[in-house]
Amino acid sequence: MAKDTAGPLRLLRETHEERVLAVLRTEGAMTRAQLTEQTGLSRATLSSIVQDLLAADALTETAADDGTSRGRGRPVTVLTLNPAGGLALGMDLGHRAVQVTVANVAHEIVGTTGIACSERTTWARRLELAISLAESLAAQHSISLSALSGVGVGVVGPVGHASRSSRAQLVRDGLNERFGVPVYVDNNTRLAGLGEAIWGAGAGLRNVLYLRLSYGVGSGLVLDGHLFSGAGGAAGELGHVSVDPEWPRCPCGGTGCLERYVSLSAVLEQCGVRSFDEVLELLTAGDERVHEVIATAGGRIGQVLATACNTVNPETVVIGGELAEAGAPLLDPIRATVRKYTHSQVRQGLEIVPATLGHDDAARGGIALVLRRSALLAGYPAATGPGSRDRVHDIG
Amino acid sequence: MAKDTAGPLRLLRETHEERVLAVLRTEGAMTRAQLTEQTGLSRATLSSIVQDLLAADALTETAADDGTSRGRGRPVTVLTLNPAGGLALGMDLGHRAVQVTVANVAHEIVGTTGIACSERTTWARRLELAISLAESLAAQHSISLSALSGVGVGVVGPVGHASRSSRAQLVRDGLNERFGVPVYVDNNTRLAGLGEAIWGAGAGLRNVLYLRLSYGVGSGLVLDGHLFSGAGGAAGELGHVSVDPEWPRCPCGGTGCLERYVSLSAVLEQCGVRSFDEVLELLTAGDERVHEVIATAGGRIGQVLATACNTVNPETVVIGGELAEAGAPLLDPIRATVRKYTHSQVRQGLEIVPATLGHDDAARGGIALVLRRSALLAGYPAATGPGSRDRVHDIG
Repeated sequence: MAKDTAGPLRLLRETHEERVLAVLRTEGAMTRAQLTEQTGLSRATLSSIVQDLLAADALTETAADDGTSRGRGRPVTVLTLNPAGGLALGMDLGHRAVQVTVANVAHEIVGTTGIACSERTTWARRLELAISLAESLAAQHSISLSALSGVGVGVVGPVGHASRSSRAQLVRDGLNERFGVPVYVDNNTRLAGLGEAIWGAGAGLRNVLYLRLSYGVGSGLVLDGHLFSGAGGAAGELGHVSVDPEWPRCPCGGTGCLERYVSLSAVLEQCGVRSFDEVLELLTAGDERVHEVIATAGGRIGQVLATACNTVNPETVVIGGELAEAGAPLLDPIRATVRKYTHSQVRQGLEIVPATLGHDDAARGGIALVLRRSALLAGYPAATGPGSRDRVHDIG
Repeated sequence: MAKDTAGPLRLLRETHEERVLAVLRTEGAMTRAQLTEQTGLSRATLSSIVQDLLAADALTETAADDGTSRGRGRPVTVLTLNPAGGLALGMDLGHRAVQVTVANVAHEIVGTTGIACSERTTWARRLELAISLAESLAAQHSISLSALSGVGVGVVGPVGHASRSSRAQLVRDGLNERFGVPVYVDNNTRLAGLGEAIWGAGAGLRNVLYLRLSYGVGSGLVLDGHLFSGAGGAAGELGHVSVDPEWPRCPCGGTGCLERYVSLSAVLEQCGVRSFDEVLELLTAGDERVHEVIATAGGRIGQVLATACNTVNPETVVIGGELAEAGAPLLDPIRATVRKYTHSQVRQGLEIVPATLGHDDAARGGIALVLRRSALLAGYPAATGPGSRDRVHDIG
């Protein structure tokens, strides 16, 4: 757990309200005066933060046990964390599985659970599955879902800022009806990137390019500490970068798209096997043909990554998805190609590492959306510059 | 002027403190009570904003003429814009010219002036030139440079967030010594992009990719309303994207870089002429060879732009630099290639337009840096989401 949450705790606790929450978490109930002393914040700052946290149901205020009052002033009260406040639910409605994760008021992951589904499963059905998984998680960890501050959901396909896509709408309406809290929907690959940038291989970094290599190829960008969607919610469509101008059109409308060459299905076909486990076995066995296929894929992926890196100059590229399990035979050619085709300033200090989160990467990204957008974390001063850590407070 | 400043006024006035400044600009001196009524802000919000604006010397407070007081309360005072507050100076120390632009407290461009210099001119000398240009501008418009709130400067080459590059340091120290105000230094192509995103072809848009096609090829990204620099200040190095994996190394460390093919010098050589004016004449005259050269360059530029657009999904791509003056013979092949190699969601609504600002594009970007970072505009609530206009408040 400690390791898992190092990312978000380091990031989120840098903000004032997190300092207040942290003190209450560790020290328990206390008066405003004690809190001022403990947090080292000015009385004015503290009182405005406490006011917002109370409004957000993150804190509860009760009269001090001794019931004393300060003469003309209002009676002394003590503040405590609201045990029913700040619960965040993350969901990933993926192609082949539905995953649900829940985090508590301390922003610690309480539990996660998932279930496989067929590609033909309707979105309405996936939604039902997600809701029942959430209910079983709640029961298992004796959490009341009435205490949710929001739900963050990853879905397949591009999702714009003001997404009016029927899929996003179906999910938003269904979950809002069930839980009566704000629902934030985004592309699940992008949310997996956000998850990796907070809890995973990019924990604590402000500029992370996450690339998922699975049946589809997509990416998620965390730039200056924000999850970046682009004008139409299609930022990070690296699976549809052309690696062969002569190749016929791709269903996406592009030509010679990377995905046609390095998707899991394409790689399986090129290796002449039916499952990726066979690919991994053949790699371990030193099969030259399979090593060649994986190296070629790595080269193509590296070419696209090089241009993407010259564009956004990330600190780290995180490679996820089944294909990443190939390890060095894939990552080494990717690294060599990116090194070869990037500007020296872009290459400098750039790391290319495998993802570290499991099936719940996108669900965790959904939780980050909730933590970032819920009243609990919104509305505090903006970053004062590109280098500011505060901006991370605004992540998502 | 009105047209020129439509961008920044629309963007910046959306913030509370801008509303306060706007009222005082148009209505003149008034009391807090009158200001509350005029701005429609809550008394608490207004008073905190007024406090910050006074601290930033953007406002001055004086006793009301009639000198009456509110009994037990403090005497009634009136607030006015500080005529000596909020002046912003923008400078561009380019390869072949130095440009200086000044904006007033109303964020309106007061004046701009420039001077050509040789590529061999030292940076110390360019700095002297910029300072004397600033002084002549101030004299010409009877502005006191003692009223500066900051200087924003564009320089050639990558500039990181905490730039310790000797060039940036020389500029920062020299200007700080001369003016005694905060100095913000960034890459001048990036600042030109910021200028276009506020005052130019991208005015009012939140996601703009600016590409400058000159002796060098570089770009500037405004993402979610922020000027984006990347982890090492090298974001937007599109001139160093490989368009030919077989081509020998480029001084940048890359291979087959776009700049080697489409820089102004490369294009002049391919056309067999000495000046770009000759190229423009030959284009007008319908010279097939020159049209071919420009079209080929457009195709290569389009390929690189397509990948960059698939990565960051901008609303608009703004093409600047001398080469952009070729117009349709260059822009049409660029548009066709980008259309062909982008994801349908990325292509949707994407516009590729020529830059509209002149020589002072980067200097204006420098002014935007000052407006954004000076106390006058810093420290207010963060954006509440990718779609929020507030984020623009944080531009740069």
